[in-house]
Amino acid sequence: MNSQKILTLALDVMGGDKGPSITIPSAIMAINELPNLHLILCGDEKIITTELALLNISPQTLNQHKQLSIFPTTEVVEMDEKPAYALRTKKNSSMRKALDLVQEGQAQACVSLGNTGALFSMAHFVLKTLPGVERPALISSLPTHDDDKHVFMLDLGANVFCDSHVLYQFGVMGSVMAQQVDGIDRPRIALLNMGEEAIKGSDHIKQAALELSENSDINYIGFIEGGDIFSNKADVIVCDGFVGNVALKTCEGVARLVFEKSKTLFKQNFLVKMLTFIVKPSLKKLFKSMNPDQYNGASLIGLRGIVVKSHGNANSSAFSLLLWKQLKKSIGKYLKK
Amino acid sequence: MNSQKILTLALDVMGGDKGPSITIPSAIMAINELPNLHLILCGDEKIITTELALLNISPQTLNQHKQLSIFPTTEVVEMDEKPAYALRTKKNSSMRKALDLVQEGQAQACVSLGNTGALFSMAHFVLKTLPGVERPALISSLPTHDDDKHVFMLDLGANVFCDSHVLYQFGVMGSVMAQQVDGIDRPRIALLNMGEEAIKGSDHIKQAALELSENSDINYIGFIEGGDIFSNKADVIVCDGFVGNVALKTCEGVARLVFEKSKTLFKQNFLVKMLTFIVKPSLKKLFKSMNPDQYNGASLIGLRGIVVKSHGNANSSAFSLLLWKQLKKSIGKYLKK
Repeated sequence: MNSQKILTLALDVMGGDKGPSITIPSAIMAINELPNLHLILCGDEKIITTELALLNISPQTLNQHKQLSIFPTTEVVEMDEKPAYALRTKKNSSMRKALDLVQEGQAQACVSLGNTGALFSMAHFVLKTLPGVERPALISSLPTHDDDKHVFMLDLGANVFCDSHVLYQFGVMGSVMAQQVDGIDRPRIALLNMGEEAIKGSDHIKQAALELSENSDINYIGFIEGGDIFSNKADVIVCDGFVGNVALKTCEGVARLVFEKSKTLFKQNFLVKMLTFIVKPSLKKLFKSMNPDQYNGASLIGLRGIVVKSHGNANSSAFSLLLWKQLKKSIGKYLKK
Repeated sequence: MNSQKILTLALDVMGGDKGPSITIPSAIMAINELPNLHLILCGDEKIITTELALLNISPQTLNQHKQLSIFPTTEVVEMDEKPAYALRTKKNSSMRKALDLVQEGQAQACVSLGNTGALFSMAHFVLKTLPGVERPALISSLPTHDDDKHVFMLDLGANVFCDSHVLYQFGVMGSVMAQQVDGIDRPRIALLNMGEEAIKGSDHIKQAALELSENSDINYIGFIEGGDIFSNKADVIVCDGFVGNVALKTCEGVARLVFEKSKTLFKQNFLVKMLTFIVKPSLKKLFKSMNPDQYNGASLIGLRGIVVKSHGNANSSAFSLLLWKQLKKSIGKYLKK
C-alpha cells in the first residue's frame, strides 16, 4: 500500500475551447505522473468513454480503475454564456457538478478550463466565501528576473471592478497565499498603479493603500507600476480583475511577439541559421521559461474549497502540467502527507 | 535659403527624472539632425547656459543661433507634484510657459518629459479641447507582429477613469489619427477588454461599444484582449488611462525580462558564448525593435495644439530620437512643406 494520501480532484472535462479532446488526454497524462491522484471526470458519459477508448481505456478497465471515475452530467456551460444564466439554468452541468463534489467533500478540489465568469459565479454560490471575504479572486504566479522567485498577482479577471475594501481583502488573501505556499514570513504586498508616487491613481486605490498600510500584519510596500511586475520588488501584486486580466494577457502577447520576431531574425542571419542547432536549445529554454502555458492555471481563492481555473485555450501539455505541477504546488500537502 | 518650412518647438527642458542634463544634449542632437527645427528652450536660464557651455555653445554663439533660443522661466513642476497644485501655482514654470508659447502661436508644438498629470491638466487648461472632445488623451504607437505595421493605443495614462462617452470619443480621435498619420482609409477600431465576447467587461465598456458601432464613420471591429494588442488585428486600441498605462508599462517590463533572461541564457551556453559575435547583432536588432525607448513619446490629442510627452526616465538618445523621429512622423507636414 502506498502511504501517501489520495488526492481526489473533480475535473470539468467539458470546459475549454477544445473540451474533452484536451481534458481527457491530459487527465490520463496526469494520473500516470501522479499515482496518488484520483480524478472524477465530470461530463457527458458517452463523449468521455469515446475519448477514453481512443486512449485504450475501455469501460471494463475503467470500472476497475483506481485513479479514474466518471460523474455523468447532461449540460455544458458554454464559453460565451452569461454567468448569471449559467448559474440559474445549468444545475446539471459538468462545471456545476464538479463544484458540488467539492462542496460535498467528495473531491478536495475542482479544476475547469471553462467560462471564467460562470465558474466564478457558480463557485461563489456553491462553495461560499471564507469569513471576512466579500469576493473570491483569481490568483496566479508570474516569473521574475530572479529565476528562483515568482510573484503572485490577483485579481486576474474574476471581478471586473473592485472597491477599496475588496482590494484590501485581496492584499490579505495574497499575503496568506505567499506565506503558505512559498513559506515567506512577511510577504511584500504592493498595489498595481499608474505610478509609484502616492498621488497617482484613483481614489479607491489610494484608500486601499491606506487600509493595507494600517494593518500591521501586512507588509504593505506601496504602489508598483506595470513595468515592475517582474522586478521581484513584491511577492504579491494586487489589482482589480479588469486590469489584472489585461496585464496578464498583455504579458503573453509580448512574449509571443518577442518569440516570433526572434525566430524571423535568427532565420535572416545566414551564419546564425547555420548554427541553429547550437542556438536553438538556449532559445527554447528561454521561451519555455516565458511561455504563458507554463503559468497556465490560476486558483480562485477566498472560497471554502479549492477551485483551479486553466486557460480556455490551454493545450493538453499545458493542462496536464497544470494538473500535476501547479496543483502539486498549491495543494501539495495532500500529496506529501 | 532652405525652402523647407521651419518647425518651432517649445521644449520644457526642466522636466523628467534627470532634467536639463538629458534634455539639453538631446536638443542639440535634434537640431543637428534637423536643419529646419527651431527649439525654444524653456527653463532656468543659468542651468541652460551651463549645460550649453558643456556642449561648446557659448552665450554669444546662442545669440546668433538660428535654431536655438532660451525662454527663461523661474519655476519647475516636480515629478510628484499634484496636478491641481501645479496648475494653480506654477504659472512661471518651464512646462506652463512651453504650453503658453503653443497657445500664443509662437511654437507649433510643445515637448515635455515632465509630470504627466500636471502636463495634462495644464495643457487642457491652456490649450482647451477641440469641439466635441471632453478629455484629451495620451496616444502612442506600439509594434505588431507585422514589421511594417504599428498599432495606436489610447488613453495611456492621461485619464484614470473614462466613462463610455469619453471612450467613444477616444475611438473617434484614434480613427482620425490613424487616417491622418498612417493614411489608412477606414482604420480598425477596437476596445480593450477582458475577453472578445460581447458579454465581457464593465457596463461602460459595453455602452462605448454600442456607441462606436452606431457611428457609420467608424470601422468598429469589437473587443480585443491584452494578448492581441500586437496581433495587427486593430489599427487603434481604446481603453481608459489606468488600463492603458498598466498595459504599456507591462509590455516594457516583459521586454526587459526577456532581454535579461536571454542574456543570461546565452552566457550559460559555452558554444553560444563563443559565437556571441555572430549572434549579438541579431539579438541587438531584436531588442532594438522591442526597446520601449523606441516607442518613447506619446502625444496628447484632442487639444487645440500639439503636445508631446516623453517618458520621465527616457535617456538622451531616446529623447533625441523622439524629437527628430516621432515628431517628424506626427507633425511631418511642417518639415516637408
